[in-house]
Amino acid sequence: MHSATAILLISCPDQRGIVARLSNFVFERGGNIVDSDHHSDLQAGRFLGRIEWEYEGGPAEREQLRLDVAAVAGPMGGQWELHFSDAVPRIALWCSKQEHCLLDLLWRHQAGELGAEIAFILSNHEVLRRHVEPLGLPFHVLPITRENKAEQEARQLDLLRRERVDLVVLAKYMQVLSRDFLQAFPEVINIHHSFLPAFAGAQPYHQALARGVKLIGASAHFVTGDLDAGPIIEQDVIRVSHRDTVEDLVRKGRDMERLVLARAVRLHLHHRVLTYGNKTVVFE
Amino acid sequence: MHSATAILLISCPDQRGIVARLSNFVFERGGNIVDSDHHSDLQAGRFLGRIEWEYEGGPAEREQLRLDVAAVAGPMGGQWELHFSDAVPRIALWCSKQEHCLLDLLWRHQAGELGAEIAFILSNHEVLRRHVEPLGLPFHVLPITRENKAEQEARQLDLLRRERVDLVVLAKYMQVLSRDFLQAFPEVINIHHSFLPAFAGAQPYHQALARGVKLIGASAHFVTGDLDAGPIIEQDVIRVSHRDTVEDLVRKGRDMERLVLARAVRLHLHHRVLTYGNKTVVFE
Amino acid sequence: MHSATAILLISCPDQRGIVARLSNFVFERGGNIVDSDHHSDLQAGRFLGRIEWEYEGGPAEREQLRLDVAAVAGPMGGQWELHFSDAVPRIALWCSKQEHCLLDLLWRHQAGELGAEIAFILSNHEVLRRHVEPLGLPFHVLPITRENKAEQEARQLDLLRRERVDLVVLAKYMQVLSRDFLQAFPEVINIHHSFLPAFAGAQPYHQALARGVKLIGASAHFVTGDLDAGPIIEQDVIRVSHRDTVEDLVRKGRDMERLVLARAVRLHLHHRVLTYGNKTVVFE
Amino acid sequence: MHSATAILLISCPDQRGIVARLSNFVFERGGNIVDSDHHSDLQAGRFLGRIEWEYEGGPAEREQLRLDVAAVAGPMGGQWELHFSDAVPRIALWCSKQEHCLLDLLWRHQAGELGAEIAFILSNHEVLRRHVEPLGLPFHVLPITRENKAEQEARQLDLLRRERVDLVVLAKYMQVLSRDFLQAFPEVINIHHSFLPAFAGAQPYHQALARGVKLIGASAHFVTGDLDAGPIIEQDVIRVSHRDTVEDLVRKGRDMERLVLARAVRLHLHHRVLTYGNKTVVFE
Repeated sequence: MHSATAILLISCPDQRGIVARLSNFVFERGGNIVDSDHHSDLQAGRFLGRIEWEYEGGPAEREQLRLDVAAVAGPMGGQWELHFSDAVPRIALWCSKQEHCLLDLLWRHQAGELGAEIAFILSNHEVLRRHVEPLGLPFHVLPITRENKAEQEARQLDLLRRERVDLVVLAKYMQVLSRDFLQAFPEVINIHHSFLPAFAGAQPYHQALARGVKLIGASAHFVTGDLDAGPIIEQDVIRVSHRDTVEDLVRKGRDMERLVLARAVRLHLHHRVLTYGNKTVVFE
Repeated sequence: MHSATAILLISCPDQRGIVARLSNFVFERGGNIVDSDHHSDLQAGRFLGRIEWEYEGGPAEREQLRLDVAAVAGPMGGQWELHFSDAVPRIALWCSKQEHCLLDLLWRHQAGELGAEIAFILSNHEVLRRHVEPLGLPFHVLPITRENKAEQEARQLDLLRRERVDLVVLAKYMQVLSRDFLQAFPEVINIHHSFLPAFAGAQPYHQALARGVKLIGASAHFVTGDLDAGPIIEQDVIRVSHRDTVEDLVRKGRDMERLVLARAVRLHLHHRVLTYGNKTVVFE
Repeated sequence: MHSATAILLISCPDQRGIVARLSNFVFERGGNIVDSDHHSDLQAGRFLGRIEWEYEGGPAEREQLRLDVAAVAGPMGGQWELHFSDAVPRIALWCSKQEHCLLDLLWRHQAGELGAEIAFILSNHEVLRRHVEPLGLPFHVLPITRENKAEQEARQLDLLRRERVDLVVLAKYMQVLSRDFLQAFPEVINIHHSFLPAFAGAQPYHQALARGVKLIGASAHFVTGDLDAGPIIEQDVIRVSHRDTVEDLVRKGRDMERLVLARAVRLHLHHRVLTYGNKTVVFE
Repeated sequence: MHSATAILLISCPDQRGIVARLSNFVFERGGNIVDSDHHSDLQAGRFLGRIEWEYEGGPAEREQLRLDVAAVAGPMGGQWELHFSDAVPRIALWCSKQEHCLLDLLWRHQAGELGAEIAFILSNHEVLRRHVEPLGLPFHVLPITRENKAEQEARQLDLLRRERVDLVVLAKYMQVLSRDFLQAFPEVINIHHSFLPAFAGAQPYHQALARGVKLIGASAHFVTGDLDAGPIIEQDVIRVSHRDTVEDLVRKGRDMERLVLARAVRLHLHHRVLTYGNKTVVFE
C-alpha cells in the first residue's frame, strides 16, 4: 500500500443496492478502490462491508467526506466507521507482572507492524517499568485494591482522555474493568489464555491440565461487562501432550497469547474488524 | 513392523527401577524391544509406560506370559494391559442417521488402517443399512424410545457378548448410553462435534456460531456416565469465518469429526492410549 | 444461500471505478449482491474480483446477461467468467488404483458438498470398478501404454465432449496428460502428495522421509504442461515424527490428499477460484 | 523437574537387550528414570534412545559416570552423549541486521525458557548493538568481506573456544559459514525462512509469492557444508492469501521464524535432539 487510503466499515440491514451506492460514492469522488469485501448474513438480514480506496484529501476534505458518508450511510440505518490509513491511532498498553505480551507488542511497534502510536503503558505494578523506560515511553503505575478501584479507574479514564487514546490493549492486565469504566471507554481488547468459551475465568492452564485436553489455546476479544464473554477477534491453538506440566502449558501458551493478541490488535488497527451483535466480522 | 509384537501398557505409583524391571523381563525372555516410551508424572507420583517387543509365542506361551507379567507388574501396584499385535480386536460401529463417520471408518477398515475386525454395525435407525450390507457386514437395528431403552440396552449388551466385541465406536450414534450399560461394557469411544469442554451437550455448531468462535473442533473421548466429560483421546480444530453459516460449520466439522474419531480409534486399537484418572496418555 | 445466484469472476488491468461499474451493473438489473470481494494487486497493476448476486432469470435472460457482461467487462481488457449457482457443473473423476480420493469425492458428492454432477469415472485400470458401479455411475477403463497414449487421449477427449464435462478431477490418476490433451481440455485439477514445490515428481513420501522433514503435505493444483508446476489452489500439512515409516507417511498423507483435493474441487465448483498468471486467487 | 537429571542420548545398531542394559545401568547406580523413549528404525536397523534419570552426583562422580557409560555403550558400536540438566550450556547468538529472532531468543533467555547461558552476541553489522548492550551482554562485530572471510572465521573460532561455547545459533546471520569453520565447530543451528526443501537459497518469500503457495513456512536445521541441506530439527507453516504482498509474507514469516528457531534451540538445549544420518530424531 503506497498512498494513503480511506476505509469505510459498515453494518446495516441488508437491502438492494448497497454495494452500488457505496462504490458509486467512492467513484464520484474520484477514488480508486484497492480492496473491498462485502457479505450479507442472510439469516440475520444484515449487510457487512469494508471498502478501502486511495485517498489523499486534507483535513477539511476529510471532515466533508465524513459528512458525505453520513448522508449516504445514515439512511441505510446501520453503524459505520470511517478511517484513514495515515491517521495513526493512539493506543495504551496495560499490563501487570507478566511481560511476554507487552514485550511482543513493543517489538512489533518498533518493527512497524502495528501501525499505531503508543501513548503510554499502564500497570498496577512496578515490575515491568525497566522494560519500558529505556524505550522512552511513559509508564504509569496505578495500583488497584478493592477500596481504591473506582478512584483509580477515574484516573485511568482521565489519562485516556488527556492522551487521546483510541484503544486500550490489555496485555496480561490482571484486573477486571468495571462496567462503568467500559461504558466510558469501550474500546478495549483483552487476551484470555484459553480457547474460549472453554476455561473462562481463573487459571485456565490448570483447568486445561485437569480436563486433559490435547490442544490449548488463546483468545483475543473485545472486553464487555461480562467476564471473558465479549466478541472474539482471533483464536489459535497449540498441541500439548502428557509430558507437559502446568509450567509447559504456561510456556506454550505464552506463544499463543503473544501471536493471537498481536494479530487481533493489528487487524483492529488496520480497521479490519467489525463488531456485530456479540460477534466480530474479520475482513482478511 | 514385520513380525508380531507384544505390547505392555502400565500405570502405577512411581518407584525406582520400573523401567529396568520391565526391560529385564523382556530381555530374559529373549525379546527385542522395538519401541518403548515411559514417563513419570512427578506431580501425581505416577509412572506411565508402554513397551513393545517382537514376540512370536503361541497361545499357551501367551497365557504364561500374562501370568509372568502379573507377577512382575502386580507388586508395582498399578493397572496393566498386555496385548499382541496379531490378535485382531473386534469392534462394533454404532451410528444413527449421519453416515460420514461410519463410511470413513469402513473405508479405513478396508484400507487396513484400523487393524481390527468389524463384528457388526448397529443403529437405532434403518437409513444407513444400504451402505453396510453391500460390504457383507451385519447391520442391526435397535430403535430406542424412552420406554424401551433399558430393554434395548440389554439386547445390545447381549450382542456385544455374543460377538466378543472389544470396543464400541459411537460413529455419530445420537443416543446417550446409561450408566448401567457403561458399567457392563465400559470400552466405548465417542466423537463429539466440538472442542470440548466448550459446547458440550446439544447443537454445538449452533452454539459455536452464536458465540462467534474463530475455530471449531471435534473431540474423541471415552464415554463415561457424565455426558461429554470422559477422558479425551484426540482433538483437532479448523478455522471458520463470518462467511460460514451453520451448514458450513456442519460441513467443515464433518471433516474434523472423521479425522479425529479415526485417529483416536486407531491409536486405541494399536494400544497407544492409557487412561489415567479422567485423562489419557497417548504414546505416539 | 436459498435462491439462485449469478457469480462474476473477473481479472483485468487495475483502473478507477471498476467496483462501481460492476455493482451498478448488478443494481440496474435489480440484483441483490450477497457477497462481493475485490482486490487490487498494486504491484502487478491487476484488479481481481468476485461478485455474487441473487438471480432468477431464465435461459434467455441468462444469455442476454452474458452479452451485457461482455459489454461492460470487455472494455476493461481482462478475463471474466459468468456462472449461475443453479447450473450444476459436470465433472469427471479420473483414478488409477488408489481409491481414497475417489471414494472421498464420491461420498462428498452424495452428501451434497460438491454441487456438481458426476458424468463418469475413468481409470487406466479395472480395480476400482467395484466401488463405482454400485452407485450407478459409468466407469470407463482406458489402459495407457507408451504406444497407445495419443490414441487413448483422443478417446478421452471424445468422452469429455460427448458428456459435456466441465472439469476433470485427477483423483490419483497416475498418468501424465500430454500438452496436446491439455490444450484441448485445460480444466483439470490434480492432487500431488507433497507440499509443492518440495518433492515434485515421483515418490514424494520417500523423498520426504529421506530429507527428514517434520511436516508432510498435499497440494491441489491446476494441471499445465509442466509437471506439478501449475497454479496451486490449496495446500495443507500434517506433522510427522521419527516413528513414522514410509507406510505411515502414506497413511497420514492420504488424509491430507483427500481433504486438500476436496476443498480445491469444491472451491472451484463454487466459482471461488480465479487463475492469474501461474497463481490462483481464492475468494473464501 | 525438581532435582537434577542425567540424560543419555544414544544411536547404535539395533540389537537385543539395549533397553535392559541401559535401564539396568541406571538402576544399579540407584537412579530413578523420569523419562525414557526408545525407538528402533527397523528399516535402517538402528536403535535410537533417550533416557533421563534423577542424578545428584558431583563432578568426580560425573566423570566416573561418563567412563561407565562409555564401557556399556561403547560395545554397542554407536554414538552417545551424556548430559546433566544442571550443567548450563553456553550459547552464542549470531545475527546480522534483522532483530526479530535475536530479540525473541533474548526474551526467552530472560524468561528462563532456554536453559542456557548466553556467552556473547556476534554480528557482521553494528545495528543491533543497541538491543544487546542494555542487557549487559557482550556484542562483537566482525564484518565479513570476500577478502577477510577466512581471517574473520579464525577470529570467530577463537572467540568460541575462549568463551567455551557449546552451540552457535544463527538468528538471521546472513553469511554462509565455510566448510572449514564447520569442521572446526560443527554445533550450529540456523533458521531458514521457508518450508525446506522448498525455496532453499536466497529470497524464499519472493520465490513463494511467485510460485503462489498457500502456506509459507520456516525450518530450523543444523548447518552443514551444503547450504540449507542439513538435518531439519523443526518446521512450521502459516496460511497466506492473495491479499498478502511480499511485505506481508515477510511479516507473517517472522513469526514462524521466531517460533521455529526458539523451539529447535530449546529442544536441542534440553538434549531432545539426536542426529542420525541427515535427519534428526526429536524426543518430545
